[in-house]
Amino acid sequence: MSYARQLLDTYPGNVNADAGVLAATLDALSDCAQACAADADADLSEQNLAEMVRCIRLCLDCTDVCTATLGVVSRQTDYDPAITRPLLEACVATCKSCGDECARHAPRYEHCRVCEQACRRCEQACRELLGVQR
Amino acid sequence: MSYARQLLDTYPGNVNADAGVLAATLDALSDCAQACAADADADLSEQNLAEMVRCIRLCLDCTDVCTATLGVVSRQTDYDPAITRPLLEACVATCKSCGDECARHAPRYEHCRVCEQACRRCEQACRELLGVQR
Amino acid sequence: MSYARQLLDTYPGNVNADAGVLAATLDALSDCAQACAADADADLSEQNLAEMVRCIRLCLDCTDVCTATLGVVSRQTDYDPAITRPLLEACVATCKSCGDECARHAPRYEHCRVCEQACRRCEQACRELLGVQR
Amino acid sequence: MSYARQLLDTYPGNVNADAGVLAATLDALSDCAQACAADADADLSEQNLAEMVRCIRLCLDCTDVCTATLGVVSRQTDYDPAITRPLLEACVATCKSCGDECARHAPRYEHCRVCEQACRRCEQACRELLGVQR
Repeated sequence: MSYARQLLDTYPGNVNADAGVLAATLDALSDCAQACAADADADLSEQNLAEMVRCIRLCLDCTDVCTATLGVVSRQTDYDPAITRPLLEACVATCKSCGDECARHAPRYEHCRVCEQACRRCEQACRELLGVQR
Repeated sequence: MSYARQLLDTYPGNVNADAGVLAATLDALSDCAQACAADADADLSEQNLAEMVRCIRLCLDCTDVCTATLGVVSRQTDYDPAITRPLLEACVATCKSCGDECARHAPRYEHCRVCEQACRRCEQACRELLGVQR
Repeated sequence: MSYARQLLDTYPGNVNADAGVLAATLDALSDCAQACAADADADLSEQNLAEMVRCIRLCLDCTDVCTATLGVVSRQTDYDPAITRPLLEACVATCKSCGDECARHAPRYEHCRVCEQACRRCEQACRELLGVQR
Repeated sequence: MSYARQLLDTYPGNVNADAGVLAATLDALSDCAQACAADADADLSEQNLAEMVRCIRLCLDCTDVCTATLGVVSRQTDYDPAITRPLLEACVATCKSCGDECARHAPRYEHCRVCEQACRRCEQACRELLGVQR
């Protein structure tokens, strides 16, 4: 069981959504932030650097946005939908743009294929949380 | 002149909005991230801690969201409005919630008054950038 | 297999340490950053808030330091031991202080026990990476 | 007067070093994090990308480390030198490596000259804080 789920199960108050959906989202955000940081770096080591610039840029954006969303979604105390919902929407949009760009490079670079998977899973998890969160 | 403005003025490509508005937003985001981190900590040192919990939580959120927005807005290369616009909207909402909560404590705590000013200025700067950015 | 390991296995250059040790460290850093953010928030929901202030503070520090270390260690391109080594040492020290403080609260709060485990595992992983990294 | 200084002046407890030195360090860390993010992006827009890879990598590291150090140094409550000192040392090392690399490109690229200045100033500020902090 992930730390995210264990922390939700021991949280002293009420959590603001189904704990399983929340934990899956936290894990997907954490994985996506890390995968995008690693993919930006792998892109920087490729020969055809000029073609990878957009992918590097979007991966850096995606790490930044997923890290912030992870922090905000981790906080159950005094949940404020006015913050969480637009941030989840921004995160969906970022994972979508980054995943689409990684998909363009996936046939050639396996690291972009792995990163695309992390982005798609995170986009889906954020959409599901948006669907269930009060 | 701030580093933000100097970096924009020496950027090798075209910047995606008026450099003055962009630099003002970058400075406001950077200031707000720092002010909120410091205010969360000042709140933690107050006697009536239970009343400050919501302020601490929102300040932590605001630091996270402003830091991510700062990273994304700093990147001029391959600008993607599908990412920047919803993120700026999430940042406006976060600065609004955090500024409103700090305002409630401002009559009693000077550090919350300072933080409220940083949040209001950042909210306004993000709104202006949303207005002019292509 | 974690994304961290998959990204290392598809990295186009040479990685700067054993891939298994590196991936274990990246996963531990990512887990610890998330656990500490969640534990700081759980602490904020406890009744005896005044006794939890040091734990909240150290958890926030630990999230910040683990997130930065995760970013730096993720980057294999142009590895620079002059940066990575002192940062891993700072991360060991932070996980140690935070884990020790969580241990003090673990008998009473299950969430601090979970967070202590994440800190201990991350401290150990960073020590191992320091031992093997060139 | 910067927000950093205003927040220190309204902090409800004792600050752990001279407020002027602390505020100067916080401002330098915040500026350096932002300058390095912008310089990494400017590098990505240059023609001779292959020569800029090391600079991009170090700028990303420097943003990560300065952001974490900013968070930790911002927190005055329950100051723990066991965390702050090694982190400041890691930050000095990171600013040094990044500043040296930016200096190599400064004759050709004005944005690297600006970023070098931010790194040098931040390195110096962290050294001064290490010298005076209890």
